[in-house]
Amino acid sequence: MERINRWRSHGGWQEVWRHDSAETGTPMEFSIFLPDGDGPMPVLWFLSGLTCSWANVTEKGEFRAACAEHGVILIAPDTSPRGDGVPDDPEGAYDFGLGAGFYVDATEQPWATNYRMRSYIETELPALVAAHFPVDMARQGITGHSMGGHGALTIGLRTPERFRSVSAIAPICAPSDCPWGRKALGQYLGPDRAAWADYDACRLIDAGARLPALKVDQGAADGFLETQLMPERLKAACDAASQPLELTMHEGYDHSYYFISSVLPAQIAWHAQYLNS
Amino acid sequence: MERINRWRSHGGWQEVWRHDSAETGTPMEFSIFLPDGDGPMPVLWFLSGLTCSWANVTEKGEFRAACAEHGVILIAPDTSPRGDGVPDDPEGAYDFGLGAGFYVDATEQPWATNYRMRSYIETELPALVAAHFPVDMARQGITGHSMGGHGALTIGLRTPERFRSVSAIAPICAPSDCPWGRKALGQYLGPDRAAWADYDACRLIDAGARLPALKVDQGAADGFLETQLMPERLKAACDAASQPLELTMHEGYDHSYYFISSVLPAQIAWHAQYLNS
Repeated sequence: MERINRWRSHGGWQEVWRHDSAETGTPMEFSIFLPDGDGPMPVLWFLSGLTCSWANVTEKGEFRAACAEHGVILIAPDTSPRGDGVPDDPEGAYDFGLGAGFYVDATEQPWATNYRMRSYIETELPALVAAHFPVDMARQGITGHSMGGHGALTIGLRTPERFRSVSAIAPICAPSDCPWGRKALGQYLGPDRAAWADYDACRLIDAGARLPALKVDQGAADGFLETQLMPERLKAACDAASQPLELTMHEGYDHSYYFISSVLPAQIAWHAQYLNS
Repeated sequence: MERINRWRSHGGWQEVWRHDSAETGTPMEFSIFLPDGDGPMPVLWFLSGLTCSWANVTEKGEFRAACAEHGVILIAPDTSPRGDGVPDDPEGAYDFGLGAGFYVDATEQPWATNYRMRSYIETELPALVAAHFPVDMARQGITGHSMGGHGALTIGLRTPERFRSVSAIAPICAPSDCPWGRKALGQYLGPDRAAWADYDACRLIDAGARLPALKVDQGAADGFLETQLMPERLKAACDAASQPLELTMHEGYDHSYYFISSVLPAQIAWHAQYLNS
C-alpha cells in the first residue's frame, strides 16, 4: 500500500492510495476521505459508474463537507482493473471492459483472470482498509451511481450483514433486462441468464434477499431512465417482497455529476443516522 | 447569445452560454448558476486562475448549495480569449497567453487585439448579463482564485462603486513583483512598470483605492505562497492604508480545488451578508 497523493479539504484529508491486488492481478487505486478525529469512524463505500475511476466523485461529488460534519469516512474504489495486460472491449466501447467491471467475478475468458471486482470490493479491499485506517468495520454503508448503484445494491443484497444502510443514485436496477447489463453480464458470465442472478438487484430481492434500510434517488430527466435504469422494476420487486424502499424521483435532474452532487450530501446524512446510532 | 448547455443542480439551473465578444473579437463562453426564484437576485462574479475556463469552478467549486441557500447568482467567465486566430505563448507556457489573460487590456502587439479581458469583465459581459438574466446589478460581489483573485482585487479596487463586497482565494497580491506577474504584465503592457500600476492590488491601495468589504482566504501549505502570491504584501498595504482586510490563513491547505471548494461556500455566505442586506 502506497499513498500517492493527499490534500487537506473540508476539515480532513482527501487521500489516494495504490496497492497490488491479488484478485485483479493489477495495481489498483482508491480514494479515501478521512475527517479529522481519532476514530474509529464508520465507513461509506461509493461505487462509481461507467468510464469512471476514483477521481470523478472525488473531484465532483461534493461529499466532503457532509462526511466531515457526520464523522464518516468515504472510500471510492476504481471501476475495473487497468493496465497493459488487462483485456478491453475490442472496439474500446465505454460500457464494457476497462472502466466497466460491473462489480462481477467474471467466469468467461479472456475476462476471468483480471475482472474480479466482486471479490475485490467484497473481500480484498475491506480487509486492506480495516488494517490501514481508523475504520469501524461494524458500521458500514454503501452507495454508488449508475453501474456503481447496481454494484451497491447487489453487494448489499448479497451481504446484508455487512451494511447498516444501502443506497444508490440512478442505479441500474434490472441488468438482466437492459442493454448495458445484458452486454456486460453476457460476456463476463456467459449467455446463461441463471449465472446472472447474483448480479441483478431485482432478482436477488425476488429470491428472498432483504436489506434493513434502502434508499434510491433518481433524476426524472435522466436520459437512461427508461432503457437502462428502470427503477420501477426495483419498486415492484420491493413492493412484492415487502422490502422497504425510499425511492425519490427528482424532477428535471439528469444522469450527471450535477445530479450526484445535489443528492449525495443528503444521502450521507441518511447513512449517518444508521452509522452513528 | 446562445445557451450551449444546462443542468438541473442543487435547486437551480447551471447554465453555459456562448456569445461573440466585441472586446476580444472571439466567441466567449461563461457559466451562470441561477437559483430557483423570480429575482432579481444579486450576482457574485468568480474569476478563475491560470489554465482554467468556466468549467473548473463549475465542476469542482461546490458553490451551488450555498448560492441556492442565499439566493445568489454566480457567474464564471473564461480566463482569456481563445480560438485559431488568437496568439499564444510561443512555447505554449501555462502562465501566459491562452488561459492566462490576467484580466488586462493588453497594449502590446500581438496581444492588444484580442487580450482585452479587463474591458470584457468590467463592461461588456456585465451589460450582456444585465440584459439577459434576472440580476440586480446594484448588488454585485466579486471573488476569484489565484490569477482570478488578482483579477477580483484589481477590478474591485478600480471600480469599488460597482461592488458591495470583494474577496479572493489565494490571490496574486503583488504581480509587479512576482514571476507570474512580471512575465504577463511585461508582455501584455510593455516593460514600463508605471503601466502596470492599474493591475496590481498593492499599488492600487498604495495609490488610494479603497473597498468597503475585503476578505482573503489563503492556504498555508500553498506551494506558490512565498514566490507568487505574497499575501503579506497585501496585508502591509492594507495596514498602511487603514483598509480593513479579513485575511485568514488555512493550515495545511494547498492551491488546488480541494482548498477552493473548502472555503468558497463560506465566502458566498460572507458576500450574501452584504448582497442581501
